[in-house]
Amino acid sequence: MTDEHIDLVSDPESDPETELNEESQQHESEPLSELEQLRIDLDEAKNRSLRALADLENFRARTNRQNAEERKYANLDLMRELLPVWDNIGRALEAVDKTHHLESLVEGVQLVYQQFLDVLTRFHCEKIDAKYKAFDPNFHASVAQIPNEEYPVSTVIEEVQTGFRLFDRVVRPSQVVLSAGKPSPANNSDQS
Amino acid sequence: MTDEHIDLVSDPESDPETELNEESQQHESEPLSELEQLRIDLDEAKNRSLRALADLENFRARTNRQNAEERKYANLDLMRELLPVWDNIGRALEAVDKTHHLESLVEGVQLVYQQFLDVLTRFHCEKIDAKYKAFDPNFHASVAQIPNEEYPVSTVIEEVQTGFRLFDRVVRPSQVVLSAGKPSPANNSDQS
Repeated sequence: MTDEHIDLVSDPESDPETELNEESQQHESEPLSELEQLRIDLDEAKNRSLRALADLENFRARTNRQNAEERKYANLDLMRELLPVWDNIGRALEAVDKTHHLESLVEGVQLVYQQFLDVLTRFHCEKIDAKYKAFDPNFHASVAQIPNEEYPVSTVIEEVQTGFRLFDRVVRPSQVVLSAGKPSPANNSDQS
Repeated sequence: MTDEHIDLVSDPESDPETELNEESQQHESEPLSELEQLRIDLDEAKNRSLRALADLENFRARTNRQNAEERKYANLDLMRELLPVWDNIGRALEAVDKTHHLESLVEGVQLVYQQFLDVLTRFHCEKIDAKYKAFDPNFHASVAQIPNEEYPVSTVIEEVQTGFRLFDRVVRPSQVVLSAGKPSPANNSDQS
């Protein structure tokens, strides 16, 4: 029961003389049919591996096509949400053109300013926390460092430009002014 | 020269008596070695096809991971370009807060309005041509149809809201008013 094919090949040895004719027939049929079977199996296995490779190639090509397509239209949803913001800027301008009313223009533009931020936030583009945080070079870019009594060295004491991140990635870093710590001890001792 | 292995198997038939011993040895070695060879080939082919399937599966999984990642950050470039637009709205508001100067606020907001559009255009989000075009349901949405002396039926005579497309896809359709053609012939004949 271990291997049927090996048993068949070693069969003739048991009684070579009486089975000679039968044996030579076996040579022509049984081992051959076994060989044929193995060849068929081999062909099938080869075909399977070729098919798998072809599947891989097709999948790769299809994926690349789909990715290119997806990339092309990736911004569509964000754009759709931004257009009302753009519309509202236009409406605020139209209104002031008719009324010359400063207060209502300011109000309109303030609303747009917030609406713009809301759309970005809805798409996970969020303000980076910076003020009074410890300087983090991954999210903050230091534009200056000035002595400060209140905050320890390398604390963000001013935000020059708001930074934004998209999930964990930086869209742009916060531009910050850092505390250089207390004025130098020499000056301190002079004054104390 | 046709098939070496088949020749070996049929060899014994040529002189069975003298070659009997040799023959049975051949049974044990040569056909076996051929079978073994085929089995080895078969194993290899099977392994190759398993490896190709595993490659396909790995590629699929890796691709799905990459696609999810890419989708997550797809809007990052557009966001980065939009932030200066948002900044400028804030600056315009800050300036008017200090100066209470209507003209400069209007100017600032007009610049922002154009800058916003420029960013969208750079990302291939462009205005749909509508005015005085024939109505195209793929790009225009009709909000009204009114009699018009100048333009034939179903011509866009007014654009209520600007439509936008991203390449060939509609981000939002143009909202349009269509010409219903000349006032009804009954009225025309009354007046002529």
